[in-house]
Amino acid sequence: MMIVLGIDPGSRVTGYGVISFHKNKLNYLGSGCIKTTSSDIPSKIGEIFQDLTAVILEFRPHICAIENVFMGKNPGSALKLGQARGSAIAAAKNQNLDVLEFAPRTIKQHVVGKGSASKEQVKHMVCYLLNIQGKLQIDASDALAISICCAHNIRT
Amino acid sequence: MMIVLGIDPGSRVTGYGVISFHKNKLNYLGSGCIKTTSSDIPSKIGEIFQDLTAVILEFRPHICAIENVFMGKNPGSALKLGQARGSAIAAAKNQNLDVLEFAPRTIKQHVVGKGSASKEQVKHMVCYLLNIQGKLQIDASDALAISICCAHNIRT
Repeated sequence: MMIVLGIDPGSRVTGYGVISFHKNKLNYLGSGCIKTTSSDIPSKIGEIFQDLTAVILEFRPHICAIENVFMGKNPGSALKLGQARGSAIAAAKNQNLDVLEFAPRTIKQHVVGKGSASKEQVKHMVCYLLNIQGKLQIDASDALAISICCAHNIRT
Repeated sequence: MMIVLGIDPGSRVTGYGVISFHKNKLNYLGSGCIKTTSSDIPSKIGEIFQDLTAVILEFRPHICAIENVFMGKNPGSALKLGQARGSAIAAAKNQNLDVLEFAPRTIKQHVVGKGSASKEQVKHMVCYLLNIQGKLQIDASDALAISICCAHNIRT
């Protein structure tokens, strides 16, 4: 049995999703969104690090997976996303986790079977594959999709 | 007496500089460059976090200062810089340090008296103000300039 933590970082909202898998069976363990509340950037970065560290200590994943970033046109947005990503990866590395990166298309391909699937389609399949009945926030859904993709990759 | 850690983050080289100050007197404590050697990005980010944490544990600064980023035109470079910056700030925050940000022009104004000063001018004044005789790498010099700017700001 192996536990995977998927992370979908963002400067305002960072989604996380934890699953376990054993052979062909996937199990949902938990998910959520880290919403930064500080006004200054260093404190926001500190919040992401601290909250993700708490998630890692709670679920004790064996590996961490994160989306390879889609490169937008705006350097300002790229910088903010980079900072959130750097903080998230540092939190995983600080707990001695390997961090695997997956391209957005690869993630969608694994979860929906189509690289250009919408976020809603991804969410639908995440809920189906993990047997999640209740509400699921979109950032948590994206993070779970990353962890499913990672599990598929390790298995094959 | 107060100890300041200045950080100049970069995806390949992250400079750091540590000074102490008491009233008008500045003292050079140490500086250096963290050069990442890993091939994958998550490991690079982990290296910056780990090495900066070691610097913080060695010098036990009371506060940390970092340059406000100049926004280039290239989203790819901005993302890389953001990741290094996020990792560096996370390392400081994880050791309970406050992190102050200063604009490049403000830093140069404080160290050289001119917001548009060159890196060589900054290095010259850093060596003069801190009485550094030997060689000084440019990234370490930039980091020391940030710590000098931070010390000036706290003092006034």
